Amino acid sequence: MILHDSFEINENGRLSIAGHDAVDLAAKFGTPAFIIDEEKIRSVCRKYREAFSELFGGESRPVYAGKALCFTDLYRVMREEKMAADCVSSGELATALKAGFPMRDVFFHGNNKTDDDIRYAISSGVGYFVADGEEELIAIDREAKNAGITQKILLRITPGIDPHTHKKIITGNVDSKFGSAISTGRASEITALAMSLGNIELSGFHCHVGSQIFEPDPFCDAAAIMMKFIAEMKKEHGYAGTILNLGGGFGVRYTEDDPIISYRDNIKAIASTVNEAAKRFLIDPPTVLMEPGRSIVAAAGATLYTVGSVKEIPGFRNYVSIDGGMTDNPRYTLYGSKYTVINASRASLPADFEITLAGRCCESGDLIAEGVRIAKPERGDVIAVLVTGAYNYSMASNYNRVPRPPVIMIGKNGPRVAVRRETREDITALDE
Amino acid sequence: MILHDSFEINENGRLSIAGHDAVDLAAKFGTPAFIIDEEKIRSVCRKYREAFSELFGGESRPVYAGKALCFTDLYRVMREEKMAADCVSSGELATALKAGFPMRDVFFHGNNKTDDDIRYAISSGVGYFVADGEEELIAIDREAKNAGITQKILLRITPGIDPHTHKKIITGNVDSKFGSAISTGRASEITALAMSLGNIELSGFHCHVGSQIFEPDPFCDAAAIMMKFIAEMKKEHGYAGTILNLGGGFGVRYTEDDPIISYRDNIKAIASTVNEAAKRFLIDPPTVLMEPGRSIVAAAGATLYTVGSVKEIPGFRNYVSIDGGMTDNPRYTLYGSKYTVINASRASLPADFEITLAGRCCESGDLIAEGVRIAKPERGDVIAVLVTGAYNYSMASNYNRVPRPPVIMIGKNGPRVAVRRETREDITALDE
Repeated sequence: MILHDSFEINENGRLSIAGHDAVDLAAKFGTPAFIIDEEKIRSVCRKYREAFSELFGGESRPVYAGKALCFTDLYRVMREEKMAADCVSSGELATALKAGFPMRDVFFHGNNKTDDDIRYAISSGVGYFVADGEEELIAIDREAKNAGITQKILLRITPGIDPHTHKKIITGNVDSKFGSAISTGRASEITALAMSLGNIELSGFHCHVGSQIFEPDPFCDAAAIMMKFIAEMKKEHGYAGTILNLGGGFGVRYTEDDPIISYRDNIKAIASTVNEAAKRFLIDPPTVLMEPGRSIVAAAGATLYTVGSVKEIPGFRNYVSIDGGMTDNPRYTLYGSKYTVINASRASLPADFEITLAGRCCESGDLIAEGVRIAKPERGDVIAVLVTGAYNYSMASNYNRVPRPPVIMIGKNGPRVAVRRETREDITALDE
Repeated sequence: MILHDSFEINENGRLSIAGHDAVDLAAKFGTPAFIIDEEKIRSVCRKYREAFSELFGGESRPVYAGKALCFTDLYRVMREEKMAADCVSSGELATALKAGFPMRDVFFHGNNKTDDDIRYAISSGVGYFVADGEEELIAIDREAKNAGITQKILLRITPGIDPHTHKKIITGNVDSKFGSAISTGRASEITALAMSLGNIELSGFHCHVGSQIFEPDPFCDAAAIMMKFIAEMKKEHGYAGTILNLGGGFGVRYTEDDPIISYRDNIKAIASTVNEAAKRFLIDPPTVLMEPGRSIVAAAGATLYTVGSVKEIPGFRNYVSIDGGMTDNPRYTLYGSKYTVINASRASLPADFEITLAGRCCESGDLIAEGVRIAKPERGDVIAVLVTGAYNYSMASNYNRVPRPPVIMIGKNGPRVAVRRETREDITALDE
């Protein structure tokens, strides 16, 4: 096992993903390609669902955050696994609809929903809006009235927790484009506004403290603050909502340096915070939702590339160029994110050749990893970058007019194309 | 005029782009939208062509670097303006082909061309490969032989110039995924290899020192080093190529803090370096090519957005959320690139409201600008981000499944859709 149970070295000395030889997968489906272990995803979903059911009880459940990885076939999996879904755009809503996902189980997010988005979501029968602020509340109320319905919403609140992770992925702070802060009094004002609008039903509150968090503490802190806020809103405004959505953010093991954590243990700690707070503040324990995205799909994925060149620069470093890069995985370029890289063709040989893994874009910063060690490759070898299930395909671009790779799902009946590879014709399809 | 002659404030107190009211453009074509001033692009192309013809003479000419902005209609403009073209992928080649661009005038770039790319380029009749290294030379030779042709190439060389710009866009250094370094002796070896291959004709050398460079010095330094190298290759290997391609990199004015420069003056300085070196090293002055991309299209473009919300957080800052963001312009997220932002709806009012311009993605880092001042907006106002012609549309993604904006070209006959807006249907079109 390498990092996660989807990845092994097989009897031919090659990487296997979900029991399938990575070099054979590359030959069959071409490279670059995203390979996704469907059973791994299903198993994580079940663990989340069981933990929520057991530890929070009632209607509490996990909500899959589709921005991590979003395509029609994956929503079919989520539907079968009885997950709720967090959609952040009308494009994600359209994907859920195409998959026949029950829209009443969808939470529609985002710091800026256009009037068109709002109409589309209402006409699709979205269960809940996670409303971000005043302009949006007014627009939702207006569009709900036009549609002759009462729209259920959660209000996005910033509890002011700093989870000590990367600056760009901190969202629980007061200084945020998202939500309304408790500490400034804005959260209370917006609650009163939401309750005053005739075509809105305020079902509860949402917060999100950050991403790639390994300890339960930031979530527990947020839960305690939010429970206190719920009690205050009950007192101040007679608020009677029942949902507390604590957002996403559980960490994922990308390299051997990352810890192995139990999501269940974290959820247990959060549940005990929520239940204690309910007693302390004399309120009913709410229905608790969380929005795992990365932690559901990241470890199920790997990207396969083919080596084009190996450039040894004496006194400097060794560049290995592959047939993908920032176009399919911009996370190193964006955040300096670390990945585990393996020469899938020579997985059992010593990983003793230190490389910079370079993408194919005409841009010096197009790198996937620096200072990683793999068995020395040559043109034609298959390189695997592990734990790319989240925020890779979903962030892919056509920079340099490079077509986006396919997504290959490995299910019970073997691998299938879940998203087809873009062609050269696709690349110019929007050009008039 | 604001920064560049495409942008003015009109008699209605609104921004105009190429003489067209930005708020009217937003109403007609929707937002977000890229607006491109075609005549501005044509005028810059002509200035480059004239400068090359006058200052270098002979066959010397500018080569448009399509990675800055690439769609079919733009290649039609480049064809009419008699530019050569630098393509970095088979997707860009496909775009040039669709536009009827003469393929003999195409230079095919990239640090990792796959066998498939090479076959496609050869079958398309590409004029020149800019070959990056050994594996690729061997592959080009093999595929040219299979096709029964001799393929002209330039060799990519790293002269070892540090242009003191942003690390991620430095490409002329020895420590680079691109090319072969002179200082390590590798450039000479690869020249000998290229000359030894039967189906390759070595027509010259290519180098690229970096991007967003305002002074001529780095280019002159590179030109001097490359001329010396050409003389050495003549002596060592009897090299008889005639082309020196000095790459791209002229700076563009994004904000009032950037200087106004004359590309002609820079080209003049480079020409005088080349001619002096030719005399000094007793070689003929080569055909000089350069590859402007950003400097041809950036200043012709602006992006129009609609404001969704204005969030004033006391003691922190004011967030203005728009209906686009890192999905259409990832440059602030990637490089911290600065832009000029204007409230197009209230362009003549004092720009006295300091804002963070936030995108619509569910990601805290999705920002377009921080600490910029505009006239205070409200939901529905049109915001323009100026000088977005380069590396915006070409780097756009569907992150959060946000559809990509259209490209509206304003030509002599008014605005037209050059690339249509993606639809929700497009978003799921590749899903099986």
